[in-house]
Amino acid sequence: MAGIAGRGTFEKVIELSARRGFFWPSARDLYPQAPAGFWVYGPLGFRLKEKIVQLWREYILRPEGAVELETPLVLPLKVFEASGHLEHFFDKLVECKRCHSRFRIDKLLEESLDIEESLEAATDEELYEMLLRSGIKCPKCGAFNWTEVKKFNLMFTLPVGAEAEEPNAALRPETTQGSVVEYKRTFTVMRGKLPFIMAQRGRVFRNEISPRRALVRMREFQQLEIHVFFDPEDVSVYEDKIKDLVDYKLRFLKQEDKETGRITEMTVSEALESGYTINALITYWLAIYQKFFNEVIGIPLDHLRYRELGEGERAHYASAHWDLEAYTEDLGWIELVNNAYRTDYDLKGHTRASGVDLSVQTPKGKVVPHLYEPSIGLDRTVLHVLMMAYREDEKRRWLKLPRYLAPIEVAVFPLVSKDGLPEVARELAKKLSRRFETYYDEKDSIGRRYRRMDEVGTPACVTVDYQTLEDGTVTLRDRDTMRQVRVPSEGLEETLEKFLSGAPLESLGAPVA
Amino acid sequence: MAGIAGRGTFEKVIELSARRGFFWPSARDLYPQAPAGFWVYGPLGFRLKEKIVQLWREYILRPEGAVELETPLVLPLKVFEASGHLEHFFDKLVECKRCHSRFRIDKLLEESLDIEESLEAATDEELYEMLLRSGIKCPKCGAFNWTEVKKFNLMFTLPVGAEAEEPNAALRPETTQGSVVEYKRTFTVMRGKLPFIMAQRGRVFRNEISPRRALVRMREFQQLEIHVFFDPEDVSVYEDKIKDLVDYKLRFLKQEDKETGRITEMTVSEALESGYTINALITYWLAIYQKFFNEVIGIPLDHLRYRELGEGERAHYASAHWDLEAYTEDLGWIELVNNAYRTDYDLKGHTRASGVDLSVQTPKGKVVPHLYEPSIGLDRTVLHVLMMAYREDEKRRWLKLPRYLAPIEVAVFPLVSKDGLPEVARELAKKLSRRFETYYDEKDSIGRRYRRMDEVGTPACVTVDYQTLEDGTVTLRDRDTMRQVRVPSEGLEETLEKFLSGAPLESLGAPVA
Repeated sequence: MAGIAGRGTFEKVIELSARRGFFWPSARDLYPQAPAGFWVYGPLGFRLKEKIVQLWREYILRPEGAVELETPLVLPLKVFEASGHLEHFFDKLVECKRCHSRFRIDKLLEESLDIEESLEAATDEELYEMLLRSGIKCPKCGAFNWTEVKKFNLMFTLPVGAEAEEPNAALRPETTQGSVVEYKRTFTVMRGKLPFIMAQRGRVFRNEISPRRALVRMREFQQLEIHVFFDPEDVSVYEDKIKDLVDYKLRFLKQEDKETGRITEMTVSEALESGYTINALITYWLAIYQKFFNEVIGIPLDHLRYRELGEGERAHYASAHWDLEAYTEDLGWIELVNNAYRTDYDLKGHTRASGVDLSVQTPKGKVVPHLYEPSIGLDRTVLHVLMMAYREDEKRRWLKLPRYLAPIEVAVFPLVSKDGLPEVARELAKKLSRRFETYYDEKDSIGRRYRRMDEVGTPACVTVDYQTLEDGTVTLRDRDTMRQVRVPSEGLEETLEKFLSGAPLESLGAPVA
Repeated sequence: MAGIAGRGTFEKVIELSARRGFFWPSARDLYPQAPAGFWVYGPLGFRLKEKIVQLWREYILRPEGAVELETPLVLPLKVFEASGHLEHFFDKLVECKRCHSRFRIDKLLEESLDIEESLEAATDEELYEMLLRSGIKCPKCGAFNWTEVKKFNLMFTLPVGAEAEEPNAALRPETTQGSVVEYKRTFTVMRGKLPFIMAQRGRVFRNEISPRRALVRMREFQQLEIHVFFDPEDVSVYEDKIKDLVDYKLRFLKQEDKETGRITEMTVSEALESGYTINALITYWLAIYQKFFNEVIGIPLDHLRYRELGEGERAHYASAHWDLEAYTEDLGWIELVNNAYRTDYDLKGHTRASGVDLSVQTPKGKVVPHLYEPSIGLDRTVLHVLMMAYREDEKRRWLKLPRYLAPIEVAVFPLVSKDGLPEVARELAKKLSRRFETYYDEKDSIGRRYRRMDEVGTPACVTVDYQTLEDGTVTLRDRDTMRQVRVPSEGLEETLEKFLSGAPLESLGAPVA
């Protein structure tokens, strides 16, 4: 796993992102005390992020027939009573009795004692005992005077309306509840049948005790979720669909191997036959998401794994759960996709709370559908893509992004800023901008302009030089090899289209000596 | 203005939208007491809405060189202290002392006394006196026992972090403050020069006392905003740009005509020469947005006007302000775009609060830029587009949407559900779905299937019939005229492309007898 995302990459990507407009901490330039965990996507980060969303739509939603909808970010508290979030969605904290600082106890222990393994599954008593026994002092004031373990609900609640004295609504901590609450109407208006796939992209909010590591643990973040409602007694559609994937290899870290970290490779048919992945529908989706992150987002297979979550680690709604994780040296294995088999937990909860029958009619009778949900953490994916792409050598830094993910697709430069070259280059840039994300620049030496584009991952630089004035050709430069070819400016759109789809530079024109 | 959006259209569009999946009230199917003012976009409404966003990007952001970014929805309270929202962003309410119901006093008066004109500019004392003098009773309990007028801040505030006892942040009530706070870094990372245009699309939140009229007054809604930062001493770029528009006619309702409703038509050059629209930059943007809503969104000019806001009506930050309003019989004139000249109010406010110099260097020296901001209410635009499109006669209902705005672009039907027609039709639908929003249906009679598509505004229906099996042709039906032509299924993509761009049906094939 050498060569990419090596030690130190995280800090470098954070610095580059703030300096070049990918992302940076919200409001801090003016108000350094602004709460942590909120981030701005600048123009380049915004485009990269939106390209990932478009790929998700193109490679997953559209071919799988998902219907996309948007539910509000503010939902009635009753929804979260029914979903169990009011009761179960909390972190455990301890407070220093002297300075009143509060800490997430599992993270405090993990960091103070340098424990690699997650303590999420430990009980309150176990955690408290560890804290006392190990004598950890308050990181803020140094006192050793802790309260008992307290529950801290992670939802932001709100009083909606002029008459509300108490909170009656909350900012959603996941998009799921919106889909669940609107499931039946959506199913009906779309004349749906099971399996039925709803999709939502959008922001969610969690009042994290300790936001950290930039886009990894945020208080406001973005999810790409699909909600697959299905009849657990009939997944025959997926038994058909999965036939094309039987030999595809899934990579698992099983519960029993969590100490050793040993990866188990299983083909789709092995996973299915062994019963490990429950049924054809879940197995299919595990394969599709691993393929998407590998083949479309570009994360090498040996940097991806499905970590099986044990009973104590799973969310309150899940009967089975795998995190699709990606690896970097700085961050270790980080969850990018939360894949939860929620069974009929959510729909039944809402029927109990509302009295509304949420079953649907199938040819075999009435069914309360089960729910399987792969949920992409979009921000973490952006961060990972940048970390995987980061390269440097003695001469330069560059982002080796998949060409189609680059926020600027093509830069157009006049070789020098005189003799009519800028006019020609500007005209060309204008033409290209109808089809590509195009950037025009004439300031500084051509070398510096190339470096600036390398640093933000622009795959193609087109330069207008004196020869252009004679024969209409321009140079096209490849970010990764820094090699150049000469190509006619007539028809440059088609040349660029091929290049961005992966054609090698040398296939497109004559090498520049 | 007859013929479109006549009396009764609003109720019909609301009913149709809920039944067919454009939009409906959030969570109410399960929890009828869920707070009002929150709406779901179902699959069809979502697509219509996103198409409007794409058109905004294509016709405004891209040609004008705006840089799009995304700032968080949760911002530190300090930002809203500096922006004046904590002090000025409130509604006035009265409370019934008997039942403790609360009402927005201006709306209570307007409705009870049937006043057409807005009371937003009236003082507390004037409003209170009107209330007492007219003897309006509590609409809830019938008592006549009012408190004095109270201020009710419309922002949702939040305590962020485990140690926060009091709110230290708020949900943004406009996207503007995000752009303002991140303006300088964005300007720097993009190597910007003035005028510099930032753009944001996203959700905003206002704790309205009385949400109403569906997507018109919501508590959570969506804006498309551009933030034009410029040097008021130098708008020469816009003096050039505006040359192509000098004869374009702007439609204004001036302050002095607010009683009569008389529209003043002014060409761009008249508006500019008279000084009414301040400078070339503001005049240009007024023209561009009127053109966009007329020519791209499809609202006829006689249903559009710029209403000038008087001193008491303007937001606290604006020195000049026009609302671009659209007309329907049911709703009257409704603001779709808020166009505010915010001067240097925001940047100066943040410099005062933060101590950070927000001026930028220009060739002429240091400048604190001024801000001009056209802000589209996206949800209202969706509602208006649907109301303008609604048609009915004795036989059917249909949505006469601009073809390129339709959420389903083409439906594919087998004439009957046997004899191999469904297989051919499904194959064709699959092919078309790579390029168009495609819907396949084989249930019920062909007439009913056409009606279902008319009702959601699908411009093109393609039917596979027995002749298709012989010669490969299909019928193509126009939603608006219900006429059909026969066209080859080979090359159907190009035919549809032409049709969706506006080609008359008859130009595309032989009429069906």
